[in-house]
Amino acid sequence: MSKEITSRETDYSQWYNDIVLKAGLADYSAVRGCMVIKPYGFALWENMRDQLDKMFKETGHQNAYFPLFIPKSFLSKEAAHVEGFAKECAVVTHYRLKNDEAGKGIVVDPEAKLEEELIIRPTSETIIWNTYKTWIQSYRDLPVLVNQWANVVRWEMRTRLFLRTTEFLWQEGHTAHATAQEAIDETVQMLNVYAAFAEEWMALPVIKGVKSESERFAGAVDTYCIEALMQDGKALQAGTSHFLGQNFAKAFDVKFSDKQNKLDYVWATSWGVSTRLIGALVMAHSDDDGLVLPPKIAPLQVVIVPVYKDETQKKMIDEKVKIFMNDFKSLGIKVKYDDDDSNRPGWKFAEYEMKGVPVRIAIGTRDLQNNTVEVARRDTKEKKFFSMDGLANTIVQLLHDIQENIYNKAKIFRESNIHKVDDWSEFEKTLDTKGGFISAHWDGTAATEEKIKELTKATIRCIPLNNPQEEGKCILTGKPSKERVLFARAY
Amino acid sequence: MSKEITSRETDYSQWYNDIVLKAGLADYSAVRGCMVIKPYGFALWENMRDQLDKMFKETGHQNAYFPLFIPKSFLSKEAAHVEGFAKECAVVTHYRLKNDEAGKGIVVDPEAKLEEELIIRPTSETIIWNTYKTWIQSYRDLPVLVNQWANVVRWEMRTRLFLRTTEFLWQEGHTAHATAQEAIDETVQMLNVYAAFAEEWMALPVIKGVKSESERFAGAVDTYCIEALMQDGKALQAGTSHFLGQNFAKAFDVKFSDKQNKLDYVWATSWGVSTRLIGALVMAHSDDDGLVLPPKIAPLQVVIVPVYKDETQKKMIDEKVKIFMNDFKSLGIKVKYDDDDSNRPGWKFAEYEMKGVPVRIAIGTRDLQNNTVEVARRDTKEKKFFSMDGLANTIVQLLHDIQENIYNKAKIFRESNIHKVDDWSEFEKTLDTKGGFISAHWDGTAATEEKIKELTKATIRCIPLNNPQEEGKCILTGKPSKERVLFARAY
Repeated sequence: MSKEITSRETDYSQWYNDIVLKAGLADYSAVRGCMVIKPYGFALWENMRDQLDKMFKETGHQNAYFPLFIPKSFLSKEAAHVEGFAKECAVVTHYRLKNDEAGKGIVVDPEAKLEEELIIRPTSETIIWNTYKTWIQSYRDLPVLVNQWANVVRWEMRTRLFLRTTEFLWQEGHTAHATAQEAIDETVQMLNVYAAFAEEWMALPVIKGVKSESERFAGAVDTYCIEALMQDGKALQAGTSHFLGQNFAKAFDVKFSDKQNKLDYVWATSWGVSTRLIGALVMAHSDDDGLVLPPKIAPLQVVIVPVYKDETQKKMIDEKVKIFMNDFKSLGIKVKYDDDDSNRPGWKFAEYEMKGVPVRIAIGTRDLQNNTVEVARRDTKEKKFFSMDGLANTIVQLLHDIQENIYNKAKIFRESNIHKVDDWSEFEKTLDTKGGFISAHWDGTAATEEKIKELTKATIRCIPLNNPQEEGKCILTGKPSKERVLFARAY
Repeated sequence: MSKEITSRETDYSQWYNDIVLKAGLADYSAVRGCMVIKPYGFALWENMRDQLDKMFKETGHQNAYFPLFIPKSFLSKEAAHVEGFAKECAVVTHYRLKNDEAGKGIVVDPEAKLEEELIIRPTSETIIWNTYKTWIQSYRDLPVLVNQWANVVRWEMRTRLFLRTTEFLWQEGHTAHATAQEAIDETVQMLNVYAAFAEEWMALPVIKGVKSESERFAGAVDTYCIEALMQDGKALQAGTSHFLGQNFAKAFDVKFSDKQNKLDYVWATSWGVSTRLIGALVMAHSDDDGLVLPPKIAPLQVVIVPVYKDETQKKMIDEKVKIFMNDFKSLGIKVKYDDDDSNRPGWKFAEYEMKGVPVRIAIGTRDLQNNTVEVARRDTKEKKFFSMDGLANTIVQLLHDIQENIYNKAKIFRESNIHKVDDWSEFEKTLDTKGGFISAHWDGTAATEEKIKELTKATIRCIPLNNPQEEGKCILTGKPSKERVLFARAY
């Protein structure tokens, strides 16, 4: 059976790829490291995007669009930024092709060389702050609260569908403020928006925290993040929100005059989440039978499958289903009646299981007699008969329960995989045998962090917000520490 | 006054640029030929995009996403396509930058040269049909009805904000069918969707037609289009829908087995509209005071401006407005109460006029006494007092009337600028003095079309659908002709 997938235990990584491909979320493409997002995967992204967009607008942001290209010289203007982003990127050097004189198809026209190369944006701080220079003169022009939905390119050596692709889709918020405090408040606000979205919509529990210096965004003063735990015990950074200080304002000379007519550099934030979230979603909730989707972002919430022997039976079922469908739709349920007769019910059951449709309803002639339907939950795989009376309301409640259950399951898994460790050999052993987050003391130096990464491949995922202060000794060096931080191996 | 704009009569082209810049639709950027779409312009695009997206989904299409990059060799696979698109395009040749050894910032790393250059998509037929090859095997896999919202790049020598930019945003539908007839029906269906959108939402009357061979999309069997008329008498192609025959299926070897198990190449269509539509919108409806927006796509439909002398008056107005605002919002009106006290009412009036907000409501203390408000229409600039009783319903009707009036005005202008011409000197004279569409006989040859273009800069915009058949003589050569076609100078 072509739809069979590798189990998590056999090969977690292969299991992930199998689900992405076989559930129809994405495909490999002819371009190295780039993927095709298939209609089902894109419908999922649209639901996530639309909800995030609503939350951005509710917090006062507007969308805009900035150029795909960044002049090479812009990348050099912010010292830390260039180190982080100028290295692995797609470079446009020419603007024309021509017929090969030797008759070998088309070649790059050497006459059409750009004076200054253009970089495909890996992130847009530079081109945006170069624009803000013309938008901002006075405190009256502030704050600027702008977001952009766009494609970006980072030339990654090792790529994984959704998790790390050369081109990916994302949103990047870029805001400008009159004071440091206002910018910090914005940074934290957007972190909270991301956390609320992850938990309430993706059913993905996340830990909010701050990055250590070496994990900070190139050009940021502070990077806030949300970190999630995958089923194999590895962490995944699901979103970041950066307080950029005045770094980009200084690099692009963006000043404003305040109420006292005094000139100062503008304060900045940037924040983003990407199609990587789909990878997180797959790895957090799915099982060995395929995708498991939280109802609130599922492209399809309920599928109804008729089970019949002949056209007479089919017609009777059709009539009943027509009534349900109307009830369902009037309650806003995304429902499909799959009466395609070229596939058998069993095939359909497996297919919708693979695609993670939260609820499957089967209806046969016996059900018509009994005034019941068979309802299967994707999350628990539990099957039950429900009365046809008030079915739409029953399903609304069930979708709610499924959303909650998926979240709780992930939350319990996460909670049971945060390990407090105070001894180096236990640190190494825990990483190898249990995985998860390790809560341990750290002496606060980049050198120790680097050494731990070298020895174990574990990195500091974050220093949690409102972290309890507690005297202790660094897990590696034994030097004094005032708080525990969260280590993990990560995607 | 910084907000003053050039009149249409003085300099139509400058008038257009002034409106785009001063209404806050877009800005020039640091990258040659690329623009920044500002929040107000992007909100307009979002409204247009969301409505089109709804219409695409209602006609059975799904969205997906394909790579930004196209391997150079793909462009050569369809003979006509390469001629049309391989020439002026952005070419990625390298994937890494490095620090200059001479210390002069960053330079392209010569070690990181791509084996095969990548082209930034100017349109996606090639990468998409290369993908469809893996999606389509049997008639059961058809039709494929996919659309993509994306950015594309065409290295234009002369650029104009929205009308012709190096990078632009668009949607491109790419469908695959089992029969030629089905593909042709799809092509026409999408042309009708575009026409309905232009007329009902953008209030832009369009002529539906077919392109002559020389104006056809590179790789198409037939290109259908909608053509609109701008206020300066020039035509603007507002959308195209292509019947691609089996050209791309043959180029990428995409075959399917039909019900009789016989192999055949797949039939294709593609269709697109872009941010260019915003340019059409500006040039079709706006006046010497700024933008004029049809209410159905305006980011803001109604603005309420309070007129007061002191805080006591302001408070009384605020209370009344609060009630209106609720009524307005409950009827789905996009409304803003601009009580920002750092700008005077006169400044606000001019500002919202410039931005094309369809309805402006001014309310002062005398209005409170009289139970009235002053309502100004952007389209006719008419001002009237309306009773506060049932105001929200009055405004709904007014927005409806404005939408209709803007459309009718453009329709009357268009109708009075289609000139039937049967004589060459009149053809030239009409182009120079009146502009508009010229309905004239043509001998059907590309040579004549080319000659007319050379002599007058006019092109055949389209052969209208359901064109009356009529014996006549070619306007240039006098050779026999069976129908009139529409000529115009165009954007």
